[in-house]
Amino acid sequence: MTTPARSGFADAAARVRPVDPAIVQAAAARHDRLTKPPGSLGRIEVAGVRLAAIAGVVPPPLPAPAAVAVFAADHGVHASGVSPWPQAVTGQMVQNFLGGGAAINVIARQVGAAVHVVDVGVATPIDSDDPRLLRRSIAPGTRDLSVEPAMDLEQARASLDIGVEIAGRLMHDGARCLLTGDMGIANTTASAAVIAACTGRTADDVTGRGAGADDEMLTHKRDVVRQATQRLVRDAGAVEILRHVGGFEIGAIAGFIVGGAAARMPVIVDGVISLAGLLLAHQLVPDVVDYVIAGHRSTEPGASAALAHVGLEPVLDLDLRLGEGTGAALALPVVQASAAILRDMATFDDAHVDTSELL
Amino acid sequence: MTTPARSGFADAAARVRPVDPAIVQAAAARHDRLTKPPGSLGRIEVAGVRLAAIAGVVPPPLPAPAAVAVFAADHGVHASGVSPWPQAVTGQMVQNFLGGGAAINVIARQVGAAVHVVDVGVATPIDSDDPRLLRRSIAPGTRDLSVEPAMDLEQARASLDIGVEIAGRLMHDGARCLLTGDMGIANTTASAAVIAACTGRTADDVTGRGAGADDEMLTHKRDVVRQATQRLVRDAGAVEILRHVGGFEIGAIAGFIVGGAAARMPVIVDGVISLAGLLLAHQLVPDVVDYVIAGHRSTEPGASAALAHVGLEPVLDLDLRLGEGTGAALALPVVQASAAILRDMATFDDAHVDTSELL
Repeated sequence: MTTPARSGFADAAARVRPVDPAIVQAAAARHDRLTKPPGSLGRIEVAGVRLAAIAGVVPPPLPAPAAVAVFAADHGVHASGVSPWPQAVTGQMVQNFLGGGAAINVIARQVGAAVHVVDVGVATPIDSDDPRLLRRSIAPGTRDLSVEPAMDLEQARASLDIGVEIAGRLMHDGARCLLTGDMGIANTTASAAVIAACTGRTADDVTGRGAGADDEMLTHKRDVVRQATQRLVRDAGAVEILRHVGGFEIGAIAGFIVGGAAARMPVIVDGVISLAGLLLAHQLVPDVVDYVIAGHRSTEPGASAALAHVGLEPVLDLDLRLGEGTGAALALPVVQASAAILRDMATFDDAHVDTSELL
Repeated sequence: MTTPARSGFADAAARVRPVDPAIVQAAAARHDRLTKPPGSLGRIEVAGVRLAAIAGVVPPPLPAPAAVAVFAADHGVHASGVSPWPQAVTGQMVQNFLGGGAAINVIARQVGAAVHVVDVGVATPIDSDDPRLLRRSIAPGTRDLSVEPAMDLEQARASLDIGVEIAGRLMHDGARCLLTGDMGIANTTASAAVIAACTGRTADDVTGRGAGADDEMLTHKRDVVRQATQRLVRDAGAVEILRHVGGFEIGAIAGFIVGGAAARMPVIVDGVISLAGLLLAHQLVPDVVDYVIAGHRSTEPGASAALAHVGLEPVLDLDLRLGEGTGAALALPVVQASAAILRDMATFDDAHVDTSELL
């Protein structure tokens, strides 16, 4: 097995192209010849058209095999008391992913997706020689965004590059559909700050309870997000936002999405952490959104703010708030079915269904 | 292969038992020990608890293999001009199901479900020796419910019995999850009338465009539904409702649901036609609802009225309005994942995740 050449973020960003409206029209026209009332498969038809546009061909190839990248990192802001969970849980959950016992493992097995874990900055050492653990640690966690920038510029750029490189690696190994995932105690605080900065919404609008903040902690978390975003200059660029209030996994997810889009590959994004990454990617490379399918609507308020900002309607709405890529993986069979419909359904002519008397 | 003994509707109805609240509690308690914040898998947890309650054991078995029964029948009310499609399309679509080219075939293959087609009253002859076509025709279509009762009492009872028998046959052949499906030009009119009669909602509230009625046809369809339900005695029983305004496939779906519930099997119901069947089943055997998972929320207004009436929240909301069982089949992987989560996820103890310092 050869190692794919490392392709940096800037290079990938330059390769992202808008989709072709002629393909969108051709896919919609094919839908209208299939043996069903026009439009009756609702958002399955919308997803199928999107996959055709991404691949540039009607019908689109089935988005399989699929690979989830779970980007794991710690957050200095944990020290300010924004999560009820100890920071050590990030590393313990990485071990759980490698052991196959986490929710993303179970769901990915069920839907036929591979799980890869990328350490982009877990605070605790991870004792493992599992080849599915990709060691790309930038630092043992970010700095505390409530008192200083979370990372320096070089680290921010490294996180974007790592995401692109991981997307390239998974596609090189055969993946034809990329799914985003995350793990990092306190990362809903960083995500809320990124989403507030990218959308212009208030901290109160986009900050939620994450993995279980009580009322008092939620109030504190909102204060942290408000103060951190106020320190940003107005209309800060995405890399500045990432540097000040982001996380290593959020930057890596942004890069991963751009890497997929550059290769015309569908990227199914998960919940609020992934959507924070998407907002950064979108601000840097607006056309990436054409290549993204939103897996689900997390209950975290920042998720709905981010989805509205980029104009995406998610596939599922199951009141999930776990992360790890679980919502993206649960959406995968529905997304795959939308491609199969365009590829495999009979047309009215094929099936000798008489539409000549249709009123 | 032996043929299962025919088990009538009354016998199946008598075997339906409410689920055990102790199992519901045990499943919820197991969820809280799994390596995720409590409740963070949202409605996946709700579905898992429901499957455990249905099976009477924690964790529940995976609901697989799954089998879709597509009940096909014609409707005399077609003559009154409630659908833009010719009646012959029902039989042509049955051939399409047998040929594997319809949406339900494509989706069922994608999610790993078998498709069985049951002719309970298609108007046109079906030329086929395909063993997956189960011939149970009661009559070549119902009578026109806009001028007379759609069927006689014996036919209504036969449709319920057939549904129970088909459920038994599929389970005898190995199915461990049943999915409802339908085909029948004009059957959204019959379904709307059943839903209006069972819920007490008005015809305007529950009647939609079906497979493509325009404004004028929709107004006429509402008039037909209003007049037909007005001819029913107030608080008519479910069999009377079925006889006056139902369809053979609607009665068969009601029986199929009761047959599944009697065997403690999960039944994933599809859209508005299946929900009309569910309302009849629920009125006859209220406890059946414990065994039902609503696959999706059809755009037909009667679907939301029916879901609210029985207190079910659907798994998917994808603006589908096709029928055939497509929405039930698309929900299957999500439902299966909910069982796998309870069965396969590590507990905090298993994974050595430290919750002792949890705030």
